Amino acid sequence: MSAGWLRRRFLPKGPLPAPRPPRPHTSPVPYRRPRFLRGSGSCPGTADAPSLPEARPVRCPARSRTLPWNAGYAEIINAEKSEFNEDQAACGKLCIQRCEFGAEEDQEWLTLCPEEFLTGHYWALFDGHGGPAAAILAANTLHSCLRRQLAAIVEGMVATQPPMHLSGRCICPSDPQFVEEKGIKTEDLVIGALENAFQECDEVIGRELEAAGQVGGCTALVAVSLQGKLYVANAGDSRAILVRRDEVRPLSSEFTPETERQRIQQLAFVYPELLAGEFTRLEFPRRLKGDDLGQKVLFRDHHMNGWSYKCVEKSDLKYPLIHGQGRQARLLGTLAVSRGLGDHQLRVLDTNIQLKPFLLSVPQVTVLDMDQLELQEEDVVVMATDGLWDVLSNEQVAQMVRSFLLGTQEDPHR
Amino acid sequence: MSAGWLRRRFLPKGPLPAPRPPRPHTSPVPYRRPRFLRGSGSCPGTADAPSLPEARPVRCPARSRTLPWNAGYAEIINAEKSEFNEDQAACGKLCIQRCEFGAEEDQEWLTLCPEEFLTGHYWALFDGHGGPAAAILAANTLHSCLRRQLAAIVEGMVATQPPMHLSGRCICPSDPQFVEEKGIKTEDLVIGALENAFQECDEVIGRELEAAGQVGGCTALVAVSLQGKLYVANAGDSRAILVRRDEVRPLSSEFTPETERQRIQQLAFVYPELLAGEFTRLEFPRRLKGDDLGQKVLFRDHHMNGWSYKCVEKSDLKYPLIHGQGRQARLLGTLAVSRGLGDHQLRVLDTNIQLKPFLLSVPQVTVLDMDQLELQEEDVVVMATDGLWDVLSNEQVAQMVRSFLLGTQEDPHR
Repeated sequence: MSAGWLRRRFLPKGPLPAPRPPRPHTSPVPYRRPRFLRGSGSCPGTADAPSLPEARPVRCPARSRTLPWNAGYAEIINAEKSEFNEDQAACGKLCIQRCEFGAEEDQEWLTLCPEEFLTGHYWALFDGHGGPAAAILAANTLHSCLRRQLAAIVEGMVATQPPMHLSGRCICPSDPQFVEEKGIKTEDLVIGALENAFQECDEVIGRELEAAGQVGGCTALVAVSLQGKLYVANAGDSRAILVRRDEVRPLSSEFTPETERQRIQQLAFVYPELLAGEFTRLEFPRRLKGDDLGQKVLFRDHHMNGWSYKCVEKSDLKYPLIHGQGRQARLLGTLAVSRGLGDHQLRVLDTNIQLKPFLLSVPQVTVLDMDQLELQEEDVVVMATDGLWDVLSNEQVAQMVRSFLLGTQEDPHR
Repeated sequence: MSAGWLRRRFLPKGPLPAPRPPRPHTSPVPYRRPRFLRGSGSCPGTADAPSLPEARPVRCPARSRTLPWNAGYAEIINAEKSEFNEDQAACGKLCIQRCEFGAEEDQEWLTLCPEEFLTGHYWALFDGHGGPAAAILAANTLHSCLRRQLAAIVEGMVATQPPMHLSGRCICPSDPQFVEEKGIKTEDLVIGALENAFQECDEVIGRELEAAGQVGGCTALVAVSLQGKLYVANAGDSRAILVRRDEVRPLSSEFTPETERQRIQQLAFVYPELLAGEFTRLEFPRRLKGDDLGQKVLFRDHHMNGWSYKCVEKSDLKYPLIHGQGRQARLLGTLAVSRGLGDHQLRVLDTNIQLKPFLLSVPQVTVLDMDQLELQEEDVVVMATDGLWDVLSNEQVAQMVRSFLLGTQEDPHR
């Protein structure tokens, strides 16, 4: 989004427009499951009890289909919160072809790197809300956005150090030194490509959903292995961990209204119009009521990590910008995550207050140097949506993975 | 600052006003040195070489004056960068009296806490720029602001858990549970008080400097010991470390245009008017020039931790919002720090572009549990401005402190 766009979209000058009615469904996003689940069934052991809610069946790819890099996949079949399963996933090989250049540059390229492709692997999880459409679009689109972003910079990626100019031309003799001083490394280009790919995918989803008259959003957790490094990009409340024999290493951190309180309050401070006078940006231990008026109660504002007391005024009784605790925390009383893709049309119920300016599509990217770590066969990356992490800790998941691997050493499909 | 104030101050609707001429010096801030330096001389060993720049004399308090808690102080005499020494300092005992309440509440108080005071210690360093006025005002004022902030919440601080209502009244039966769930502890109140005291002091400095027709700003590094904890609040590029026998622990982190790049770029993205068309918010490895036009060069924007390439347009040739590297990095070509007190009138040379909206007065606060750490006599907290850290690493300073303490074990004044 650009600043002008932010203003045009979220700060109407005249009277507030009525909520846009959904357009006729010109090309609705068709419901589908992750491609690699085709022909799959429930896992043995749980398949015989599909109707018991305490033993919901688990779906995983058919044994004949192997996912790249010995990856596995399992999901709990729709918990009946919504008509369709809103969780989607994608994985595949990532082949990055260089962009087309003129003949002269082609030659230079051939000298630099005899291979025409860089290849990597891609795994992604999308946890949808408000319908499966955004998650389906993300599963269909994000890898293409990433491939395009990487293809545009592949010349920079195969150089020992990213050149100041992508063409390799040196306009200032000290250009390599400027790049060196900024500490810019190849992995920074991949991080930048992931950040830009998430933004691009978010724009595609916004356009597609509007055209299809559909709504919804999703979180996105992506792992990419490329040039000996594992990149984990996360926007939302999913989580990835690396389980090793003696270590459990978090590879992402969650973005929720609670973890991003200061950023969200700060935006409401700079643009109070975004709250349309309906919410208070201040945080209190609970929602205040009439009896609290005139009392000094605990609060914090955008600039505070600590807490202080303030004398309660009438405007403090409004609904809080961020309300609730832990799993119940909601942004504008509506959304449990503060980053993700989609939700361009999402408004607070019965108002014109939009969620999107507070909701970011930018991921945080963690980098793992796989060569340096000397990864072993039993080291496993676990990626899962909040459904898993709400009931199991990192340590519990690690124990389960370790004991499963120990018990199935002979099974080639484990 | 409030959002309305931000707009009135920094986003003029009509033509830009001419820079305000300094008012007649009604009550200029008089130059002075830290109070505890009175009667002090240069340290032995360097006093005989005051004119050699490579051996500038060091000033420290007279031997007869002891600072609280065996504190020491030393400064290099004015490096001749400016007419006066712009570094200031303050230290003292912090006595927090409860605020006045009605008789009924008095009684309740006496039951809760038989002592009328909470006492602590306070040390502060202020590194001025653009003249010593802001640093002098900060050294005169910040402790009073902090005392006032703490006095206003002392009832909450002496309770086992901060009560939802400062009065201790329980309006909802589950109020203590809400506070518990938010994890609000006594130390969060002290952190909040420090954050608010910095803001209050910044406002005082703004008013006083404007009234006196003076200018300038300063960084602020404050350490407060209170109720068994050490709080270190930092706004600027000073640094505090804890030196122990086997460990060097950083107690603060620096705020410079480089460390706060994303926050600064984000503000320029949301309010491009703040740059008045004179700067580009994008970061490049060096300032671009005409020869770079049309080339794809490395850049990053506010949402990026990584780097990418963009095709250079004419607007990218503008002076960068953040320019330079390391010690040379400048905000709007003007300021080397991104947090501090004062600078309300500071503008980019020959323009009306103000620094203040990008410059924050909010400190980051670190808490050290001194009881839990079992501090020893030889454990030392070192607080210093960038002058020291530019030439010595944490580890080098720790080695010097350790060897000095070993060599002077018999000296009661060491």
